[in-house]
Amino acid sequence: MIPNVLAERYASPALQAIWSAEGRIVLEREFWIAVMKAQRDLGLDVPQDAIDAYEKVKDSVDTASIMAREKITRHDVKARIEEFNDLAGHEQVHKGMTSRDLTENVEQLQVYRSLLIVRDKTVATLRRFRERSEQWSELILTARTHNVAAQPTTLGKRIAMFGEELLSALQALDAVIATYAVRGLKGAVGTQMDQLSLFEGDAEKVADLEKRVVAHLGMPAVWTNVGQVYPRSLDFRVVAALTDLCSGPSSFCKTLRLMAGHETASEGFAPGQTGSSAMPHKMNSRSCERVNGFHVILKGYLAMASGLAGDQWNEGDVSCSVVRRIMLPDSFYAIDGMFETFLTVLDQMDAYEAVINAETAHYLPFLMTTTIMMEAVKSGVGRETAHKAIKEHAVATVADLRTGKIERNNLIERLAGDSRLGLSREALDAILAKGDRESGAAKTQIETFAAAVRELEKASPQAAAYGPGSIL
Amino acid sequence: MIPNVLAERYASPALQAIWSAEGRIVLEREFWIAVMKAQRDLGLDVPQDAIDAYEKVKDSVDTASIMAREKITRHDVKARIEEFNDLAGHEQVHKGMTSRDLTENVEQLQVYRSLLIVRDKTVATLRRFRERSEQWSELILTARTHNVAAQPTTLGKRIAMFGEELLSALQALDAVIATYAVRGLKGAVGTQMDQLSLFEGDAEKVADLEKRVVAHLGMPAVWTNVGQVYPRSLDFRVVAALTDLCSGPSSFCKTLRLMAGHETASEGFAPGQTGSSAMPHKMNSRSCERVNGFHVILKGYLAMASGLAGDQWNEGDVSCSVVRRIMLPDSFYAIDGMFETFLTVLDQMDAYEAVINAETAHYLPFLMTTTIMMEAVKSGVGRETAHKAIKEHAVATVADLRTGKIERNNLIERLAGDSRLGLSREALDAILAKGDRESGAAKTQIETFAAAVRELEKASPQAAAYGPGSIL
Amino acid sequence: MIPNVLAERYASPALQAIWSAEGRIVLEREFWIAVMKAQRDLGLDVPQDAIDAYEKVKDSVDTASIMAREKITRHDVKARIEEFNDLAGHEQVHKGMTSRDLTENVEQLQVYRSLLIVRDKTVATLRRFRERSEQWSELILTARTHNVAAQPTTLGKRIAMFGEELLSALQALDAVIATYAVRGLKGAVGTQMDQLSLFEGDAEKVADLEKRVVAHLGMPAVWTNVGQVYPRSLDFRVVAALTDLCSGPSSFCKTLRLMAGHETASEGFAPGQTGSSAMPHKMNSRSCERVNGFHVILKGYLAMASGLAGDQWNEGDVSCSVVRRIMLPDSFYAIDGMFETFLTVLDQMDAYEAVINAETAHYLPFLMTTTIMMEAVKSGVGRETAHKAIKEHAVATVADLRTGKIERNNLIERLAGDSRLGLSREALDAILAKGDRESGAAKTQIETFAAAVRELEKASPQAAAYGPGSIL
Amino acid sequence: MIPNVLAERYASPALQAIWSAEGRIVLEREFWIAVMKAQRDLGLDVPQDAIDAYEKVKDSVDTASIMAREKITRHDVKARIEEFNDLAGHEQVHKGMTSRDLTENVEQLQVYRSLLIVRDKTVATLRRFRERSEQWSELILTARTHNVAAQPTTLGKRIAMFGEELLSALQALDAVIATYAVRGLKGAVGTQMDQLSLFEGDAEKVADLEKRVVAHLGMPAVWTNVGQVYPRSLDFRVVAALTDLCSGPSSFCKTLRLMAGHETASEGFAPGQTGSSAMPHKMNSRSCERVNGFHVILKGYLAMASGLAGDQWNEGDVSCSVVRRIMLPDSFYAIDGMFETFLTVLDQMDAYEAVINAETAHYLPFLMTTTIMMEAVKSGVGRETAHKAIKEHAVATVADLRTGKIERNNLIERLAGDSRLGLSREALDAILAKGDRESGAAKTQIETFAAAVRELEKASPQAAAYGPGSIL
Repeated sequence: MIPNVLAERYASPALQAIWSAEGRIVLEREFWIAVMKAQRDLGLDVPQDAIDAYEKVKDSVDTASIMAREKITRHDVKARIEEFNDLAGHEQVHKGMTSRDLTENVEQLQVYRSLLIVRDKTVATLRRFRERSEQWSELILTARTHNVAAQPTTLGKRIAMFGEELLSALQALDAVIATYAVRGLKGAVGTQMDQLSLFEGDAEKVADLEKRVVAHLGMPAVWTNVGQVYPRSLDFRVVAALTDLCSGPSSFCKTLRLMAGHETASEGFAPGQTGSSAMPHKMNSRSCERVNGFHVILKGYLAMASGLAGDQWNEGDVSCSVVRRIMLPDSFYAIDGMFETFLTVLDQMDAYEAVINAETAHYLPFLMTTTIMMEAVKSGVGRETAHKAIKEHAVATVADLRTGKIERNNLIERLAGDSRLGLSREALDAILAKGDRESGAAKTQIETFAAAVRELEKASPQAAAYGPGSIL
Repeated sequence: MIPNVLAERYASPALQAIWSAEGRIVLEREFWIAVMKAQRDLGLDVPQDAIDAYEKVKDSVDTASIMAREKITRHDVKARIEEFNDLAGHEQVHKGMTSRDLTENVEQLQVYRSLLIVRDKTVATLRRFRERSEQWSELILTARTHNVAAQPTTLGKRIAMFGEELLSALQALDAVIATYAVRGLKGAVGTQMDQLSLFEGDAEKVADLEKRVVAHLGMPAVWTNVGQVYPRSLDFRVVAALTDLCSGPSSFCKTLRLMAGHETASEGFAPGQTGSSAMPHKMNSRSCERVNGFHVILKGYLAMASGLAGDQWNEGDVSCSVVRRIMLPDSFYAIDGMFETFLTVLDQMDAYEAVINAETAHYLPFLMTTTIMMEAVKSGVGRETAHKAIKEHAVATVADLRTGKIERNNLIERLAGDSRLGLSREALDAILAKGDRESGAAKTQIETFAAAVRELEKASPQAAAYGPGSIL
Repeated sequence: MIPNVLAERYASPALQAIWSAEGRIVLEREFWIAVMKAQRDLGLDVPQDAIDAYEKVKDSVDTASIMAREKITRHDVKARIEEFNDLAGHEQVHKGMTSRDLTENVEQLQVYRSLLIVRDKTVATLRRFRERSEQWSELILTARTHNVAAQPTTLGKRIAMFGEELLSALQALDAVIATYAVRGLKGAVGTQMDQLSLFEGDAEKVADLEKRVVAHLGMPAVWTNVGQVYPRSLDFRVVAALTDLCSGPSSFCKTLRLMAGHETASEGFAPGQTGSSAMPHKMNSRSCERVNGFHVILKGYLAMASGLAGDQWNEGDVSCSVVRRIMLPDSFYAIDGMFETFLTVLDQMDAYEAVINAETAHYLPFLMTTTIMMEAVKSGVGRETAHKAIKEHAVATVADLRTGKIERNNLIERLAGDSRLGLSREALDAILAKGDRESGAAKTQIETFAAAVRELEKASPQAAAYGPGSIL
Repeated sequence: MIPNVLAERYASPALQAIWSAEGRIVLEREFWIAVMKAQRDLGLDVPQDAIDAYEKVKDSVDTASIMAREKITRHDVKARIEEFNDLAGHEQVHKGMTSRDLTENVEQLQVYRSLLIVRDKTVATLRRFRERSEQWSELILTARTHNVAAQPTTLGKRIAMFGEELLSALQALDAVIATYAVRGLKGAVGTQMDQLSLFEGDAEKVADLEKRVVAHLGMPAVWTNVGQVYPRSLDFRVVAALTDLCSGPSSFCKTLRLMAGHETASEGFAPGQTGSSAMPHKMNSRSCERVNGFHVILKGYLAMASGLAGDQWNEGDVSCSVVRRIMLPDSFYAIDGMFETFLTVLDQMDAYEAVINAETAHYLPFLMTTTIMMEAVKSGVGRETAHKAIKEHAVATVADLRTGKIERNNLIERLAGDSRLGLSREALDAILAKGDRESGAAKTQIETFAAAVRELEKASPQAAAYGPGSIL
């Protein structure tokens, strides 16, 4: 059999269990049992021993037997009804239901439970973002814009920046979870005609039945006006939220790949691991690259989801069917694989302080030119004179570095030797020394982020404590 | 000059005003003034007469003059600073700010204000959805799945179905609006180093400054940890919400295009308007088609937004710049054009009851076969016998209709003549007559939708009352 | 194990064989053998008995054993090398090669062979398009624009229209196939340094080696300047061509779904098959809907492919890896499933002449108004007078039809009774009778299409004769 | 008026001229004149003085006057017909034509002419790729995979790599150009019924008419079987080809942004230009970032194009209209802006040999470990012994560099001091010295690329000589 690569290579057992054929069949059977119980409680004749019999066999899943039935009936739901009935020795399931009353609700349950797992992993990831940003909250780093040195920051601040992006995506995810509405028992075209027939037109009982079934599913809301299907824009919203979650990790991983190129940091290695045997110095950012790959994958599934939304004809059809069979499970496998990989990156990453400090030392004179100018002005030099002098020396320094005339940034010496500025070498060194500790509001910013994450951790301690499985 | 087609042909003046060059410059100037006032209140030396002078000239926008300056400075923000300074006769703006402290915040203000307009038009659209669904709440219609007749519903219910999808998208939009965070005054790499210098290291004052500026902007939240830019996943989230809003209208318009093909409904015509001069019977669904086109357009801008998210290198760069110049305004022009067009469709659409009733009459015997079988069983016929008889006649009826042997569905006569069923013509007619009024829970469902919309209307009466401009 | 749904439910055995783990391993082994033979022929010491031993075991694939090795080596290619070596009892494979020298070339071979299969199925599809368009080349049909009646055409012409779109996509596919270039043996960063070492700097031998290996692969071209990987825009081009192929079938299927709504045609049923048991008249366009679904899926994979193109850093990395593991096989499974489904639709579809003719009869008076006007003018009536009279009656007829005042289009009677036109009932009937046979150049157009397809069939008779497998 | 940003800021005058309102109107008028001439030559009564009159006024375009007419007629084509007729004083244009006979063909002409311009700019870009790759064909550079040092290459080879990707995309573009088919004069539903009426059923004349008109347009092919519109998959194919062209430049620009981070190269500056005034060392890769932005934009327009393909209902409608009004011109403005920007990058880029050499010197010992091991073995040391010794020292060297214990890579000294290897310092230095010149087949590869480009230049010397306009 050809395996689903996302599920088998990257996703965790929890996600596999929800979306596997077996897992789905158990969910369906639990759903049928919930409907039967509700129908019985509301007065329909559903014998207790039948319900008991169904409950006893609900976990006996034989996919081969079901497939054999489908080849005869040419109807997948019918095959699963017959299998369950035969196992239980009764014919009580699926009363007054159409196929979509089963499949839509169960697929939404799969989606909803997956969303809750994804939320937990987001919290686990935020915990690590917090820990790493606190760990390196005071490690001065050359911030880069346009990929070139700009001003000082700290490594912790850089990490908190991507962490806060994920925190923001979590808000968006929470909005989707909080309003996620299930289709309910609405019948073939959404009017509940068949359940109404079953309950002889008693609208209250039909409404009550749906309420009980939704309570079984444990979902926060239910649609009122639908057709055969729930609107596919809901699937779009879900996949958009998953894609959104990738953004912070993905930007972080790109940045870590850049830092690996400068050897200021790396995604690290498991103990004992070395790089390629031929080139032992090589430490490839394989996992970071994979995180970026997962983001691309999710954007693809989002394109599929967006191809379904807004394309409902009348009360619906199955032009979405083959797409949802792929897009829904595979989106969740992908986001799950992304988190498993990214949690590993955050756990194993390493920063090389010596290299970071060397980089800062190299660029520091450039980063402090504004301050130098201000000091010169304070000591009586004209602003334009100071600016002109500094600019001349800075441009010359860059040129000399790039042509190889010098190897180290000697801007300070040049400035110290220029009488126009009137600043001693000691004064200049003092400015640099201050710059070396200058990270603006970085520390407070990190604390604000950390406090927000700590609250989440307190609310979901088990989620926060999650550790990733071993990745390939 | 080559015009922006979306802005000029489809968008409303309110959106044009926000995104035009002139509109943007005024927003920038108001922002600078807000910063100056806050800086003054917090102790910086910003003379009141300077502020007064800036306020006096803030609406004098001369884009040609600014462009002339840009050609010299080769820096767009610098050109706008100089223009504003020269107009006011002072040099007090932009103190301690980098370009992005201006541009990011102002662009976010454009986005935020546009979102509020879009929300209002959503409410206006929901009002019409409600009115139309109530108007036709009892008009029985043949519901279709797979585009073929399935069970009865009502036209009002069909409309409420797409309305409720939009209502759900409004929830998603509201979540984006409620958490929309502005970047704030964060400096070149996000550490607020320059504002801290300006306030001589007084972190509290810098925090206060930002709070005041955000209050001026009127946005609900502010980022803490950012770099040069705010995370582009926020743009993605905005465009995803706009795309989401298109889904209900787009599905409705596809369905109305289908109904026009059956002449059961049309998007209507303005008084006096006729179809093509050559074919006077032709009433083309041009506006519905356009709504579907706008949805495709928004999916394209969403692809652009998704291409920016997760692609931040370090503290940021401008690889997003050209994309956002296009994607942000054009997404809003497109959603605005969509709503203007769709509001017109809802205002002018027409349903043809006679044709709808004829369709129902034609298909009704098919739709009631389950009920017929149940009645036969009640009167003592075996279930399998009844099923076999009905199936034979139904299949034969379909075949005769398609081969042209008959023109009207005569299933009832066939069933009446079959002694196996034991149902008289009168009994069968009674079943049909009942079916003709059978729409299950449709009416209650519509009421639930209408009540939810009425609450929105009450909360935003002005938005609800909005009428679209005249469309091309 | 969680299966790949696209592969297992929809793809044909030929595609599964190429992309299965086993199929890929055999391709790799054949590739290694080809390299060894070429190395030997060019003077390296590779013993013949080693080559023989490898050839003997190349089809013995034990994926479990390989996976067990990978868990130790943590390197998938290394695991496969060791397995092959152990099976053969030699250590001669992979000399002077890096992993990408193996994997890139073999993956491209999978792509190339899949493209050839897809091409064959395109030809098979075109044959059926031709047959169907010829079968119904004279069956007059009401052409629709904006989904409403416009002018007469023929059903055959409508089919040829979508067929010609596919023919055009085949041209595009052929361009991709004809220029498809393989990466070749280029080493770790594309400079062939390791093969040059192996051949002691003999550049000619290294060039010859590559030529021989490419000849083994049977591909039309080879890249010269690459890095670790071939440019991912080539993958984009492939998936774009596959997406392109879906367009004609997808438009045809949407049109068939529309026709099913009017009961003028259907995708047909297998003998013995009936619709839903509850509603025996129902003949759902399930397969057409599925074809539309496959198109959406391919657009999603195209978004993934477009996410990889233009994102190469330096000489390359593996951020594309997880994406290509999904996107490449799944794109081919999807296009294959599309063709299997669509071939079935073309084989089983049915047209209902009686309903088609009734539709034509109903709309014909509208379609002939221009001709009627011209005849009136010829007989001496003023153009404006004629136009005004016709328009009045046409608009009234439409209104009466929609309000149910009349059931049949009686425009001709109205016109016959209007003395302003001066046309007798006989004269008007004659115009209608002519219109009933009027399809312009449709027949010639079909012949042109058919002739082009026949040439393709002649060139690839086996491909043209292909029949789809049984679909779900 | 709100301008089209892509057109006004980035596109060149040639593209603006094709897609401006004025440019389009002239193309339409030329088309009408071509039809009139052909109709006259084939026997219709079209007076020569009418044709002369139309030709005289065809360039007098007054868009305000046309817009005023459109507000009355509510039909854009009608307004343009009336304007042209009034200017000429005749009523001979548009005979037997529907709107789409005009608009489809003219829009395709705009597309086709734009494609030819794009092709020319591709050739101009390839010329620069060739020049740059030849200029630096021998400059040894540390090739990077996974963004970390791997093996030596040359800067010229790296450039040729991205150049060859563009060369490949040009092949794909040429395939689109060579087969680009125009819709022709097909009438309202594609059957040519109206032209046949005009020529009293003479099919040969109608065929001849179309041939003449296509000859006027100068396009390589014409559709036979179409409906109201040509298949939108053709638009998809065009935009896919444009997107494809971005890939090589986009990967090159990402790589140049990476190199700028290491100061090994930059996109350069215009003479006199400096970086930011505050940070004079800063040389931002603004243009490279913009090229990457254009690629994202084109992927968005591709998503729009892919949303139209495969969505034709029957003989067509205008759901594509608003999309094509945006997507077609804006795709071409974007690709044009991309080329203008990228040509500037290639013209102004700079490489810093001293920094490149320093990088190579730093990493060289790592890159040559395989060779060192081979030499040790040759001199009698066991392979495993040698490997173990080298690995120990390499890992220690990396660790010492990252912890700051050492600043320079001293692997060679370590190896020279290890008696297990038995290699003298001189022997090791010799290996390094050789490595310093080692670039495998890079030079030959560059020559192959250059030769292919030279042929293109010879075939299109004017295109090759094109220089970009001044960019913002």
